[in-house]
Amino acid sequence: MIITLTTDFGVKDPYVGIMKGVILGIAPDVEIVDLSHEIRSYDVLDAAFVLKSSYSYFPAGTIHVGVIDPGVGSVRRAIAGLANRHYFVAPDNGVLSLVLDTESGKEPPQVHHISNERLFRTPVSRTFHGRDIFAPTAAHLARGTPLESVGASIGDFVRRAIPKLTPLGRTGVLATVLHVDKFGNIITNLRRDHLSPHFRIHVAGSEVTRLCNTFSEAPPGELVAIEGSTGFIEIALDQASAAESLNIRPGAEIKVETARVNY
Amino acid sequence: MIITLTTDFGVKDPYVGIMKGVILGIAPDVEIVDLSHEIRSYDVLDAAFVLKSSYSYFPAGTIHVGVIDPGVGSVRRAIAGLANRHYFVAPDNGVLSLVLDTESGKEPPQVHHISNERLFRTPVSRTFHGRDIFAPTAAHLARGTPLESVGASIGDFVRRAIPKLTPLGRTGVLATVLHVDKFGNIITNLRRDHLSPHFRIHVAGSEVTRLCNTFSEAPPGELVAIEGSTGFIEIALDQASAAESLNIRPGAEIKVETARVNY
Amino acid sequence: MIITLTTDFGVKDPYVGIMKGVILGIAPDVEIVDLSHEIRSYDVLDAAFVLKSSYSYFPAGTIHVGVIDPGVGSVRRAIAGLANRHYFVAPDNGVLSLVLDTESGKEPPQVHHISNERLFRTPVSRTFHGRDIFAPTAAHLARGTPLESVGASIGDFVRRAIPKLTPLGRTGVLATVLHVDKFGNIITNLRRDHLSPHFRIHVAGSEVTRLCNTFSEAPPGELVAIEGSTGFIEIALDQASAAESLNIRPGAEIKVETARVNY
Repeated sequence: MIITLTTDFGVKDPYVGIMKGVILGIAPDVEIVDLSHEIRSYDVLDAAFVLKSSYSYFPAGTIHVGVIDPGVGSVRRAIAGLANRHYFVAPDNGVLSLVLDTESGKEPPQVHHISNERLFRTPVSRTFHGRDIFAPTAAHLARGTPLESVGASIGDFVRRAIPKLTPLGRTGVLATVLHVDKFGNIITNLRRDHLSPHFRIHVAGSEVTRLCNTFSEAPPGELVAIEGSTGFIEIALDQASAAESLNIRPGAEIKVETARVNY
Repeated sequence: MIITLTTDFGVKDPYVGIMKGVILGIAPDVEIVDLSHEIRSYDVLDAAFVLKSSYSYFPAGTIHVGVIDPGVGSVRRAIAGLANRHYFVAPDNGVLSLVLDTESGKEPPQVHHISNERLFRTPVSRTFHGRDIFAPTAAHLARGTPLESVGASIGDFVRRAIPKLTPLGRTGVLATVLHVDKFGNIITNLRRDHLSPHFRIHVAGSEVTRLCNTFSEAPPGELVAIEGSTGFIEIALDQASAAESLNIRPGAEIKVETARVNY
Repeated sequence: MIITLTTDFGVKDPYVGIMKGVILGIAPDVEIVDLSHEIRSYDVLDAAFVLKSSYSYFPAGTIHVGVIDPGVGSVRRAIAGLANRHYFVAPDNGVLSLVLDTESGKEPPQVHHISNERLFRTPVSRTFHGRDIFAPTAAHLARGTPLESVGASIGDFVRRAIPKLTPLGRTGVLATVLHVDKFGNIITNLRRDHLSPHFRIHVAGSEVTRLCNTFSEAPPGELVAIEGSTGFIEIALDQASAAESLNIRPGAEIKVETARVNY
C-alpha cells in the first residue's frame, strides 16, 4: 500500500519526517512517496493542481494526503474521499476539489468528514493536524479501516475550480497561468484543442505563435507553445526559463487570438 | 526497522543517497526516513533541536542518525546511544545532547564510543564518516548487532543544553529563539506555563500580548504567541512570516514581562 | 532491488513523485533512493559526475536512472547499460558516459538502445520520457526483464569525459573545477598523486599551498587542499564556503605549479 504526501511544509523542518514516523508506527509496511513539500505556503489551489496532475500515475488504492492547512485548529473540517479508485485525505479547504471533481460518466466521489477520534493521535494539537489527524487517518486507511469509519458521509465539501477560459470577442480567449515549474515552463489552462492553426498567444508583452512538439524544436531564444506532460499548453523556451524571461507568476492572464472558443 | 537521517548535507549533492546505499547494502529491509538535510551547516544545536522534536513520533527501536560533523576526521569521537527505547548514532559533538538527556524518573541513557572497526567501511575516509562509520554502524544495529558491540560504554559524552530562561527582575524573563521554521514561525524556549495572563513579550522592537490557540485566530498582521506543535511558545503571524517581519534569527533574545518566573 | 534516481527536476514539482508512482505500479517491492534532483538544469556532465561518485556505494544489481534530458522527444536515443554489475538507464546524451567508461582490466560495458515499446507507458509523451520510458524500463529491469529485451545492443553511445589535466610548462598543470558542493567545497579533477610536496595551486587569484587531512586541520580562513570523499582534491575552508569566497563555479580553470605532471 502506498501513501503519497503533498504539503507546504518544506524540507528544512522535521514536520514531514514526523508525519512519516506517525504513519509507520501505525502501518509499518506502507510505502511513503513525497509528491511535493514545496507547495507555496498556504496555496491551496497549487496543491490541488499538483494532486490532480499526479495521482493517476500511482496504482489504484493509493492514499494521497494533502496538508496545506492555513485554517488548522479552526472550524474547517478534515475530509477523506474516494474517487477513481484512489483515496484522498486533507483539510476541507479545496485541496481535494480537483481530484474529487465529478467527471462525466464516472461514479461520483464518496467523501466523509473525518471525525472519528479513535483514529487520531492524542492529544490533538491545534497547530499540526498533519501529525495528529491526517497522517494517522491515512495510515489506518492503509491498514484496511473502511472509509466509512472515519466519519459521516458529506456532500458539501469545499469545491474550488481551475480558472476557466473566458471568451474575448468572437475568436479570442482569456486564459490563466496555473503553475510555473522548476524549468520556468509556464503551464496554462489552455489545451491543445483550444489553439487554432493560426493562434497568437499574448503573454506579458510578448507574442507566441509557434506550437512545438518538443522543447528542442524551439528556435533558440524563441518563446513557443508546447503540449506539456500534464495535458495543458505550456509556454516555454529551449533550455531557459520562460517564466523568468517574462517575469510571470501563477495567476497571470494570457490572451489568445484565434483560439477555438467553441471547443 | 526504521533508520532516520538528519544532516547538514543538503539535497543537491549525492552524499545522503550514498549513505542510503551503504545502509541498504548492509540492511536491505530497513526503512529509511529523512528528518532534515537542511540543518544549517555545522549547526549542532539546531540538529539537536530537530532530533529532540522528532524522535518520539517514531516507533520504539527506531535508529536515529545525525551527521552534523565539522570535526570529521579529527579526534572527536563517534557515539551510539540508547534512550527512551530509541537508538541514536552521531559524532560526539552535542548533536545527541538533547535526546540523551536524563529526564527525571527515566532510566539514564546508555552511551557507547563507536570504535569497533569491523562495523566500518574500509578504508575509512577522513572527510565522510557519514558514509564510512555512521551509516554502516546504524545499519548493523538495525540488523541486530547489540549496542555494546560498537565500543566501550562512556559517560563523558558532549552535552549541550537548550538555552535556559534567565530571570529579569522580579517578574521578567530573558528567553531565546531556538529555531525559525519554513513558515517564519519563531520557536522560543518558553513554554505556555511561563506566560502569566497579562504577559508582554518584547521581541526585536515589537510587542506581543495575545496568546492564540490557532494561527487563524490571529488578527491580520498582528504578531501573536501560540503554543506550537513542539510544546514551545512560537511567535507567529497568520499566513505570513513573523521571522521575516522582525528580521530575527535563531539565538536572538526575547524579553518577557510578567512571566511566571517561579515555574 | 533498488532503483536510484538522479534528475534536474527539482523537488517543487511532482515530476519525481510521478516517476515513483509509475515504478511502484510495475515493481511494487522495489526500494527507490534519490541521489539528487538538484542537478543544474540540463547539466549532463554534472549528473555524470554525481552518478560516477555514487553508484558503487549501492549493492551490485542496483538500477540507476538518470534523467537530465534537454533533448526529450527528439531523435536522441534512450539507453540502458550494465557495467561493474550495476544497471544504468538514461537518455543517450552523455549522462552515463563516466559510469559506462571502460576501465582497464574490467569487462566492457554492455549497452542497449531502449526501443521495446511494450515496456513503455502509452501514449509516450514528447516531453516527459522520465515518466513514460525511463521509469517503466527501470521498473521492468527490477522485475527481472533481461537487459537484452530493452532493444538492440549498441557500441556508439555518447561518450563525454571528465575534463583532462593539461600540462603547463615542465612542472605545471591546468586543472578544472568539476563540482561545487553544498558546503562550498571546490571539487577539482586533481588527485592526490598529482600534487608534489611543494605544490602551489592558483585559483581565482588566490594561492593554496597546504594539503590537510581533515577540514578541521585548516587554519581559520585559509584555503587548503584536501583529498575529498570522491577521491579528488578539493579546495576548502574550514566551516565556510571556499566557492563563495572565491566566487568560482564548475568549469573554472585552476593552475597548479610543481605538480607531478608525469603521473
